[in-house]
Parts: sequence; structure tokens; C-alpha cells
Amino acid sequence: MSQERTISIERDILSKNDAFAAANRTRLLNAGVFALNLVSSPGSGKTSILVRTITDLKDKWSVAVIEGDQQTSRDADRIRATGAAAVQINTGKGCHLDAHMVGHALDRLSLRSGSLLFVENVGNLVCPAAFDLGEAHKVVVLSVTEGEDKPLKYPDMFAAADLMLLNKSDLLPHLDFDISACLAAAERANPRIRSLTVSARTGEGLAAFYSWIEERASVAADRAP
Amino acid sequence: MSQERTISIERDILSKNDAFAAANRTRLLNAGVFALNLVSSPGSGKTSILVRTITDLKDKWSVAVIEGDQQTSRDADRIRATGAAAVQINTGKGCHLDAHMVGHALDRLSLRSGSLLFVENVGNLVCPAAFDLGEAHKVVVLSVTEGEDKPLKYPDMFAAADLMLLNKSDLLPHLDFDISACLAAAERANPRIRSLTVSARTGEGLAAFYSWIEERASVAADRAP
Repeated sequence: MSQERTISIERDILSKNDAFAAANRTRLLNAGVFALNLVSSPGSGKTSILVRTITDLKDKWSVAVIEGDQQTSRDADRIRATGAAAVQINTGKGCHLDAHMVGHALDRLSLRSGSLLFVENVGNLVCPAAFDLGEAHKVVVLSVTEGEDKPLKYPDMFAAADLMLLNKSDLLPHLDFDISACLAAAERANPRIRSLTVSARTGEGLAAFYSWIEERASVAADRAP
Repeated sequence: MSQERTISIERDILSKNDAFAAANRTRLLNAGVFALNLVSSPGSGKTSILVRTITDLKDKWSVAVIEGDQQTSRDADRIRATGAAAVQINTGKGCHLDAHMVGHALDRLSLRSGSLLFVENVGNLVCPAAFDLGEAHKVVVLSVTEGEDKPLKYPDMFAAADLMLLNKSDLLPHLDFDISACLAAAERANPRIRSLTVSARTGEGLAAFYSWIEERASVAADRAP
């Protein structure tokens, strides 16, 4: 297949996705739902962060989750165990969620105004970067076990995210991981990115994440119709 | 775009890739080169395993590496520091290497008979599964920090691999990781997969990996023309 034809097909797919994403965004804004799209490598701890976040915030927020995985409903099962609503999307051969899938998942959730919606994308530092789902922000999770150079090697994902959660900080004593080098790499990919060091296991740093959510949700609510 | 058109384009891309892969395979067999395709999530330790493997095997084998990353030549630089030849491929927006890219990289390496060639794929547990590069075997690296359920959530990659290296075993004392559950998950995705627990940091288990390479290279050499 020629490169020109490949590029034209990619544009076609992305422009269709952007139309579905715009519809999701309008729908979420009108419904008063604040949505975050969590992206990362497999095994960075997205689900563990969500389980702890839902448990810590459930008296304040009504939380729902859309889970993306190639196979299994394990993540949705873990979320439902917290009492939150969860819809699992299995992408099969697909390496990312798209806005059309998320629109169908929204049909299956009855979200009330003031809800917080997390979309947990397929674990992949490449493909989900290009696909807007209609979220307010992408949040990229990076485990300190993955090495500080990942923002340089996968720059599109860090450029697309507004917040980086540097997770598994409890393992730092056992690793040669240079936090300042990692933050510098993330800022090189995206000079406006905010970064927080957290541990889903110990809870370290999560209060700052919750404050960030409150602040961004309040800004989004001010912009709502 | 209709689902039928998408599927037909995917078939077109994969059948073109398979033709390039078959050409690479013939070329490598005729040249007496044994090639392994290393696949994993970002940050599982593929490059660290390669650096240690090259250092340990360099008196026995002539080793070369083809490195795939979205951006940067950091991995090729790390490989070259061992004295081995390395070619870096930057995939840009692409989430995997394909056989055409690898063919061009082979043009830039002059591999003598009896060489060992490692292809380090883009860190991604989804996309590289479908793309044969002409290698003798895919080797999937999974870090114990990623959780034992990854073979169930990303089954295509584990089905495509003949060996799983369970890396970063030095971190096991600090994690809740169930090795036997992980091995069971890998065998569910692929009943014929071999698994070895290793640590690129301490060297644990790597002797068994080197024995596996010797054995598989010897089988491949017996089949060569």
C-alpha cells in the first residue's frame, strides 16, 4: 500500500474519531460530568490508582469507570468491587479505545450531574495518544519501574497529557530511578505538563491528585453551558 | 469507514508484511544468522537484558541489534557501548516494527555466518504481535512489576511468543506478585510457551536464557539449506 494511501486512511479514521469525540464532549458537558482519560503502559497501576481514588472520593463524588482492555473483564470487576459503576470494553485486536466505543459505553451508564468519569484506556504508550475520546484531560501514568527516559521515547503520549502521575513511588528505594531526569524528560515532551509522584499502594501523593481533580473539574464546570 | 473496508485494509497490510517477512527469513537462514524478536511493554527491561546478554556472550557469538523506538537513539547507543553493532529505527507515529523496515536495517548490517541478531521491538504489548519480521522466535519480556494478569489481558502477544522472560526478579521481595499465577496465565494464552525468571540487574536466570538460545539456534542451523 502506498504511503499516501496509508496517510489518507489515517486522516479518515482520525477525523471520524474527532467527530464522535466532539459529540461525547458536548454530551458530558451538558450532563455535568467531568471525564478523565487514563493512559499508560500495561501494568503501570492505572486500575490500582482508580480503586484507591474511588474509595477515597466516594463520599464526595459519584464515580463511574469505562474500562478498555484487549481481553478480560478483570479491571471492571475490580472497579465494581468498590461499589462504582463500570463498563468494560474489549478491543480484541485493537490497541486503543476510540470515541465511538466510548459513546456506546456512555449509553450504558446513567451518569448524574456532578459525576466523575474515568476512562481507563488499553495499556499502550503509543496508540491512545492520537485518539480524543471527548475527555476533559488525558492523565498519563508512568511507573517508576519503567525508567526515566520513557517521555523521550514515547513523546506523543506525554505531549497529549495534561498531568503525569509517577506511580509506585514506594519502590523507589529499590531502583536506580532519577525523578528529576524523568520530570525534565516529561517537560521536554510537553512544557505545560503537571507531574505528581504517587503510590497507589501507600497512598503517597494521592491527596495532590484529588486536589488537581477538584480544581480542573471546577474550571470545567465554569465553562459548562 | 465501514468495518468491512477496515478489515480488508488490515489484511492488505498484513499480507504485504508477510511477504517481506518471508524474504527476511530466507535471507537470514541463507546467511546463517539466528534472529530473535524481543517484544514487551515499555520499560520491561529489554535493552538491559540485551546489554547483559551481549556482554556475557560476546566471546561466543557475534551479536548485532536492530532497535525500534518511536523516537530517540538511546537504546542503540546503549547497545553500541557494548561493542555490538546496532541500527536504530524510529517509527514516528508507528506502534511496531514491520518486516520492510527490518529488511532495510539488514542492508545496513554486514552479518557474518553464525551471528546472533536481536530485534528489539517498540515497547507495546499489542501491535507487534501481528507482525512477523522474519525472526526465528518472538521472545516476550514481562516485568514482575507489571502484574501477573498481563498474559490474559494481552493474549495475542503471549500466543505469538515461544519464550517468556519474567524480568526484574530482584524486585520480587518488594511486590505482591504470584509467579505461579503468571505462568498459568501465560500457558492459558499459549500452552507451548517456555518461561524463565530472570533479572538483568543481578544476572539471575540468564544462563538458562543463553542455553535456550544455543539450543534453538542449533535446531535452526540443522534446518538451514
